[in-house]
Amino acid sequence: MNKKLPVLAPGATIGILGGGQLGRMLALAAAELGLKCHIYAPEMDSCAFDVSAAQTCAAYEDEAALAKFADAVDVVTYEFENIPAATAKFLWSRKPVFPDPSVLETTQDRIVEKTFVNRLGIATPKFAAVDSIATLKQAVAGIGTPSVLKTRRLGYDGKGQATIKRAEEAEAAFASIGSAPSILEQFVPFRREVSVVAARGRDGKVVAFDTTENLHRDHILHKSRVPARMPDALGGQAIVIATKIAEALNYVGVLAVEMFVLDESGKLKLLVNEIAPRVHNSGHWTMDGATASQFEQHIRAVAGWPLAKPRRLGNVEMTNLIGAEANDWEKLAAEPGACVHLYGKGEARAGRKMGHVTRITKDTESIIR
Amino acid sequence: MNKKLPVLAPGATIGILGGGQLGRMLALAAAELGLKCHIYAPEMDSCAFDVSAAQTCAAYEDEAALAKFADAVDVVTYEFENIPAATAKFLWSRKPVFPDPSVLETTQDRIVEKTFVNRLGIATPKFAAVDSIATLKQAVAGIGTPSVLKTRRLGYDGKGQATIKRAEEAEAAFASIGSAPSILEQFVPFRREVSVVAARGRDGKVVAFDTTENLHRDHILHKSRVPARMPDALGGQAIVIATKIAEALNYVGVLAVEMFVLDESGKLKLLVNEIAPRVHNSGHWTMDGATASQFEQHIRAVAGWPLAKPRRLGNVEMTNLIGAEANDWEKLAAEPGACVHLYGKGEARAGRKMGHVTRITKDTESIIR
Repeated sequence: MNKKLPVLAPGATIGILGGGQLGRMLALAAAELGLKCHIYAPEMDSCAFDVSAAQTCAAYEDEAALAKFADAVDVVTYEFENIPAATAKFLWSRKPVFPDPSVLETTQDRIVEKTFVNRLGIATPKFAAVDSIATLKQAVAGIGTPSVLKTRRLGYDGKGQATIKRAEEAEAAFASIGSAPSILEQFVPFRREVSVVAARGRDGKVVAFDTTENLHRDHILHKSRVPARMPDALGGQAIVIATKIAEALNYVGVLAVEMFVLDESGKLKLLVNEIAPRVHNSGHWTMDGATASQFEQHIRAVAGWPLAKPRRLGNVEMTNLIGAEANDWEKLAAEPGACVHLYGKGEARAGRKMGHVTRITKDTESIIR
Repeated sequence: MNKKLPVLAPGATIGILGGGQLGRMLALAAAELGLKCHIYAPEMDSCAFDVSAAQTCAAYEDEAALAKFADAVDVVTYEFENIPAATAKFLWSRKPVFPDPSVLETTQDRIVEKTFVNRLGIATPKFAAVDSIATLKQAVAGIGTPSVLKTRRLGYDGKGQATIKRAEEAEAAFASIGSAPSILEQFVPFRREVSVVAARGRDGKVVAFDTTENLHRDHILHKSRVPARMPDALGGQAIVIATKIAEALNYVGVLAVEMFVLDESGKLKLLVNEIAPRVHNSGHWTMDGATASQFEQHIRAVAGWPLAKPRRLGNVEMTNLIGAEANDWEKLAAEPGACVHLYGKGEARAGRKMGHVTRITKDTESIIR
């Protein structure tokens, strides 16, 4: 369905699968360009519903609802990469879907994803497939410890992961993730975690934002900062890697590639950790810190518009507001220069991304805490 | 109803009277802060409906609909100053309304407005009330020609206006505006038209954006540019005037004060032309050209939040897309650095504001055409 699709004119409707904060920020960006959004999400309290022209609250398996949704929109995209492949294919048979559902097949399985990346000549941490205690023991023997056992599918924000520090912890780790089909990954003593958020248009052009440095807390993104503390040339190399991946996937839209910066006896090296086939938390800084955001870029790409050429507005730091941290909104709202974003979610549950705050300065070093 | 009102917490609902592009951009700004909007507008195709959590499509005189709306929201504001005074008062008896409905009484009548401004010791063009041919002839004799006859109420974008170049045109001019109660204003041979967009919080603090220069075409705003081509001290004086007006009105929210810059034998002087008790077209540049927009400031003010302290990001030029000009969206979308905004309106009728584009540079002179 993705051939010779006309450019979407203002007034057209973009269907978005997923109703969380990413869908919400996509809908806000689409509105600025005169495009309507129709959000499809199973959760009644989806925060993207509040800013969209139309809403469908139904399960991803509900084919009647999906068919009606497809009829109501001009193009389909997603804010959430764990859409069932069958859902994406069902929609694809009726309306253009960007990025192509084949991308999900690659990125929904950590083994398939890393194998794909390696085939492009791009390094990843060492890994092995695990589907039993026997294969796990073999993998631990080959990769060594410490290493990380992760479910092949449906993991995010550290969910479905277990660290194996010593070989004898292997069985317990496997049990802790429900003995699901898994991947054992080498634990990488990285110096930095970075990501590249890049957009690829329907015309094949790629525009990447500056390589971003990410700091995690409890496996959840805590802060992003731009520029990343790394040599410019290495930041450029990260962009080359993300571009190669976007092209190999024949990707349309925004994707994020997470990487580790490794120091091998003084020589810095990049390893790809993960591909997120969607707008990404580490690109939220672009809303305030660049002349066009990742959300605008994604909408432009899926609508067939030319991509913007964003300019960064300074040194930028984005801090997530996780769970109760969002209760500080009054203090943050009073902070001069702080750009506060709240996602309109109800309950500030532990670990839930409730909002973020962006600070733009000329001196990044001084504001990292 | 406006006493001791608690600060609105994220998740609260702001009711907005009026569903045009200003309501739309207010709703988008509110969403960034985690606040919901409920749009009340009589027009079925109101473009603000598409980005709001709730909508009421009903006449401003429909008290049943207004009562239901008041029950559903935490605070009421407007994007449109010609709300019937009775509507604002009806709502005010049920829910807090910002700015206070008494502001509308002052600004909805050009005679009352200019008299109010003069009483603050602030100059306006000379004016006189007109309600008959006889009073018009008297006014023309006193003020001279050229002068401009305007209806006292409900005028905007040059509607309800007639220029009187010679005294003998007076009768025809009065007929052309339907012999409505009017104001005759001295025609001012201004050097520039400027405006100040300022916010006043519930706490009484005023934060103004830089004085903006406005260029009109066919009585409709064509371009705004910041900084205005005027001495800094005069720009500062314009901000003092707007602040004085906001304080005298006990205003809460964003207002715009339009002024003329007059050159009296080499001495520059400001005359207040009009007060707009709402977010204003000449403040659209703040969406891309400042760290917080006029829309965010208005939402912060009516929600009782502290105002942001916006920083300007460079020299900024905003160009309206009027009627068919919006058909150039593809070309504009491809222009590097141009920030395109389209309002999601259906038909690009002549004179209709369909969108705007913002360009940020370091050299304002070079981009004014």
